[in-house]
Amino acid sequence: MDRSPSIFLKIIAGEIPCWKLYEDAHVLAFLDIGPLSRGHCLVIPKQQYVTLDEMPPEEIAAIARVLPRLAKAVMAATGATAYNVLQNNGAVAGQEVNHVHFHIIPRAEGDGLGYRWHPKKLDAEEAKTLQANIAAALEA
Amino acid sequence: MDRSPSIFLKIIAGEIPCWKLYEDAHVLAFLDIGPLSRGHCLVIPKQQYVTLDEMPPEEIAAIARVLPRLAKAVMAATGATAYNVLQNNGAVAGQEVNHVHFHIIPRAEGDGLGYRWHPKKLDAEEAKTLQANIAAALEA
Repeated sequence: MDRSPSIFLKIIAGEIPCWKLYEDAHVLAFLDIGPLSRGHCLVIPKQQYVTLDEMPPEEIAAIARVLPRLAKAVMAATGATAYNVLQNNGAVAGQEVNHVHFHIIPRAEGDGLGYRWHPKKLDAEEAKTLQANIAAALEA
Repeated sequence: MDRSPSIFLKIIAGEIPCWKLYEDAHVLAFLDIGPLSRGHCLVIPKQQYVTLDEMPPEEIAAIARVLPRLAKAVMAATGATAYNVLQNNGAVAGQEVNHVHFHIIPRAEGDGLGYRWHPKKLDAEEAKTLQANIAAALEA
């Protein structure tokens, strides 16, 4: 994973302009310049973390606190009544900027967006192993 | 939106079993029984909120604090190196249970998952209007 300073740091520093929606000591929110839908915006920590699992609990909590109010405002401003909150970690998962960002993506019927949903069935033996291994990793 | 008691409340109450991964006073995490990939799990607030925008900041912060540690444990247990965090609001956005839930979806090359990504270009006039309207909604 690329750990070089992200382009978002330049946006935070004001060296690259953005359509700012919200800012506090820890968080910046702005319109995505490649929107999937009208009102698509990004919410980022002002400090660069490459992936969510690297974030201290209080840093991610600071972002989370902003999400309900911002989502509500985006819905009010766009008239959308549904939305996805999406956060990608790793290039294989679709991450394109090496700085944690939450997408708020307003949705409308027939917009052709959404997550590709191909569920399997959870096997009990598999589940037991996973549960044990995840519990062990949580303890570690 | 359906505001009846969710099936997750029965899981929280222990009336319906789950493959529990984590629990604290505010949050429960368990394996999704219709996994999109190995290790796909859900993180939910113990109190029912239908959509994220209805959540008090501290309730969503309590969930967010758990996400980095849990994501790390899921990655360690599955060997995955990438993942999506996804949270759907409204049936049109793919929400299937009327109780806020965050998906952690481990990803692998060629797994056929991911968000359908069809970006447009943000028009400056449109952006200006959106920014003003979202700012006004945030103030309201």
